[in-house]
Amino acid sequence: MPKGGEKQEVGFMLVLVLGFFYLIDHFGFDEDRTFKQRYLVADQYWKKDNGPILFYTGNEGDITWFCNNTGFMWDVAEELEAMLVFAEHRYYGESLPFGNESFSDSKHLNYLTSEQALADFAVLVEYLKSSIAGARHSPVIAIGGSYGGMLAAWFRMKYPHVVVGALAASAPIWQFNDLVPCGTFFSIVTNDFKKSGTGCSESIRNSWNAINHLSSTDAGLQWLSNTFHLCSPLKNLQDAAVLKNWLSETWVNLAMVNYPYKADFLQPLPAWPIQEVCKFLKDPSLSDKALLQNVFRAVNLYYNYTGEASCLDVSQTATKSLGEMGWYYQTCTEMVMPLCTDGVHDMFEPQKWDFDALSEECQRMWGVRPRLSWILSMYGGKNINSHSNIIFSNGGLDPWSAGGVTQNITNSLVAVVIPDGAHHLDLRSRNPLDPKSVQQARALEICLMKQWIETARHSH
Amino acid sequence: MPKGGEKQEVGFMLVLVLGFFYLIDHFGFDEDRTFKQRYLVADQYWKKDNGPILFYTGNEGDITWFCNNTGFMWDVAEELEAMLVFAEHRYYGESLPFGNESFSDSKHLNYLTSEQALADFAVLVEYLKSSIAGARHSPVIAIGGSYGGMLAAWFRMKYPHVVVGALAASAPIWQFNDLVPCGTFFSIVTNDFKKSGTGCSESIRNSWNAINHLSSTDAGLQWLSNTFHLCSPLKNLQDAAVLKNWLSETWVNLAMVNYPYKADFLQPLPAWPIQEVCKFLKDPSLSDKALLQNVFRAVNLYYNYTGEASCLDVSQTATKSLGEMGWYYQTCTEMVMPLCTDGVHDMFEPQKWDFDALSEECQRMWGVRPRLSWILSMYGGKNINSHSNIIFSNGGLDPWSAGGVTQNITNSLVAVVIPDGAHHLDLRSRNPLDPKSVQQARALEICLMKQWIETARHSH
Repeated sequence: MPKGGEKQEVGFMLVLVLGFFYLIDHFGFDEDRTFKQRYLVADQYWKKDNGPILFYTGNEGDITWFCNNTGFMWDVAEELEAMLVFAEHRYYGESLPFGNESFSDSKHLNYLTSEQALADFAVLVEYLKSSIAGARHSPVIAIGGSYGGMLAAWFRMKYPHVVVGALAASAPIWQFNDLVPCGTFFSIVTNDFKKSGTGCSESIRNSWNAINHLSSTDAGLQWLSNTFHLCSPLKNLQDAAVLKNWLSETWVNLAMVNYPYKADFLQPLPAWPIQEVCKFLKDPSLSDKALLQNVFRAVNLYYNYTGEASCLDVSQTATKSLGEMGWYYQTCTEMVMPLCTDGVHDMFEPQKWDFDALSEECQRMWGVRPRLSWILSMYGGKNINSHSNIIFSNGGLDPWSAGGVTQNITNSLVAVVIPDGAHHLDLRSRNPLDPKSVQQARALEICLMKQWIETARHSH
Repeated sequence: MPKGGEKQEVGFMLVLVLGFFYLIDHFGFDEDRTFKQRYLVADQYWKKDNGPILFYTGNEGDITWFCNNTGFMWDVAEELEAMLVFAEHRYYGESLPFGNESFSDSKHLNYLTSEQALADFAVLVEYLKSSIAGARHSPVIAIGGSYGGMLAAWFRMKYPHVVVGALAASAPIWQFNDLVPCGTFFSIVTNDFKKSGTGCSESIRNSWNAINHLSSTDAGLQWLSNTFHLCSPLKNLQDAAVLKNWLSETWVNLAMVNYPYKADFLQPLPAWPIQEVCKFLKDPSLSDKALLQNVFRAVNLYYNYTGEASCLDVSQTATKSLGEMGWYYQTCTEMVMPLCTDGVHDMFEPQKWDFDALSEECQRMWGVRPRLSWILSMYGGKNINSHSNIIFSNGGLDPWSAGGVTQNITNSLVAVVIPDGAHHLDLRSRNPLDPKSVQQARALEICLMKQWIETARHSH
């Protein structure tokens, strides 16, 4: 075991919280300072004689939060006799290369890329294997969800000498450039609402014009502010646009966390939260005000299920454990994922994908411009069939499945589809209310991981 | 065909000399300027309907010089109906990111890495495939020798979506860290001399002490300067050390270019130049002065085969087409290749591998420190069996074969050994004096390349 860590109760089990010093820049030699990156280790079930290591490729947030929301790894640790490692992504949580200055300008942000993060992971795995007694020949499997799922897949693609395989859950590796239609994402969100209650998606589609009508007068803005219990009242049309964006994001988030049981991922929520929300949204033909009062009741369920919120804040849509600043910068550089709506195949206000507008905004915000096709040049886009040992799992309810791999590419690039699953449901803890589809998905994932481990063992 | 290029006679055939604008930094978004990189295209034999592209991954020198010394590609172009592309490596030849300032300090040198060079190649191939009519589905094969051979192999490993395979000729991808013994390199040089004439390697082994004796007096230094026809006379022991280094490098270079026919790679030389050199070095038991007079005659053959040199310059050992500055920087950063001698298994003065001394020198020279194990973390060291479609060819006479792959790793990571070959002999033009071993090596290389091309064609 690495020494000097602090023991913490993180969710289910005791983990050791450790730090490792990385180079701030793996790809250049002028900047040779290091920074401390946090990682968590749990070895209760690890077979010390080269038992496997499940390595969580941290994504855009605090690693303890991801650790708590990746119960799958805890559930399989005993069966696989595996050590669990959760590595925090640079520029998130406590792993800030320049401390409080990390987000101050484009110079300090320059080292926030997926390539640097993968290099961090590679160096960390090598360090663990060389420093932990009995781990030298431990097969390592990368596991991640969402952006972390992309990282897990890319980690296997770029560093196959470091990880024997990857479980990439809900990883939209094809949500780039023109690989998939930009509208599918929002049409999946819409379908989730359509299926969850009569009149539900239509009510939401009608809500936008209702807001537009009301926000054209000061009295209407005042009414909206009161009705939605907003912390800061709406003052003008621009504020009304912020309200609409916030509502849109709320519906998207609900689609992502539409889990079959009570859970607390982005927010504390009941089982099948979209069904609960849709109970308020049965009649799309109501008057503007009646419709929006229902919309408030719907979003209030998302933001205030615990009843603790005294007002609703349109600048926040999810847990503060996510690193919004860092992710905003990443979407302004590498992680350019085209999305669009047409109001016909989806329940949203029509909005074209506008790269130039994004580029201008990024230049203004961060002093950088996004590179639309770089991720494809780097990671291969759809032309990835020479790689091996990657599971791409996707939930049918999850809008991010629009950019995911949902059909087998080869015998060893396997797509697992979970029709009743939302965003990386398979990575969550076992639950009595789990649909059969996610139970089977996990069984297949475990089976394939065991095969990789066996193959790796025989190669020694 | 890309437009706007300048037609030039480069060696055998007409090529189009073109430029492409690359990002100076592929891995960060703060530096977003571009630079013009040179590449050469020859499409006389190309089958315009998605015929293959042979892509030379340029290494540490002027690309026209490599183009002239890679006759193999020209020889196979017609048979494979292939387009030839020779891409210049950034910071070499005319492809200088910051013009004359490129080598001015560690800031300007910061973008000279193998990772940036590979990203250049990937982006260039994608550009060529999208801009040349009929090339969209052209299978691309990377070909390179020496450091360029490493780049070819790494290009396939890291960008398998861009190149269907790689021919890595004389690529010492394992001459890093502790993967191979540091002494093998010089023992191969020594064997070349031992086999090429009685008394030859012993004469060279004895020459070091002879120089040490003579350089202990001013008269001796004067005698050495005169005897070796040096352009600048030796003044002290330090200069004598430079003389010895220069002689060592000369013997190494001779081992690299010990070709079976008259050639002009590093210098114009006769066939089997070591045999010629050894004709002067038959008697190791001569007096110091008599021995060193013979050593002079030997090195004079290397430096003055044409008879044009009026004096010998100990600061130069090979063609000026190689970019010494850039390569020096690269060996001070990523390309740390441990070498050592013991004077027993080799004919050189004993010298241990001293990383700390190298690190100090690099800090003094360039303001950077080498990272000993980074190349292994990045490219996998000996753990590369999950990759495919790479030919590693090595010559038995070539000291760099010490760090090369000389045994098959898998069915599709194939080692080709050419016992009578020096440094990437297989990449040179066919020659009537070619030994059978290189003819067979080339036949196998061509056969495997055809297989890759066929497989790629069927996947469409």
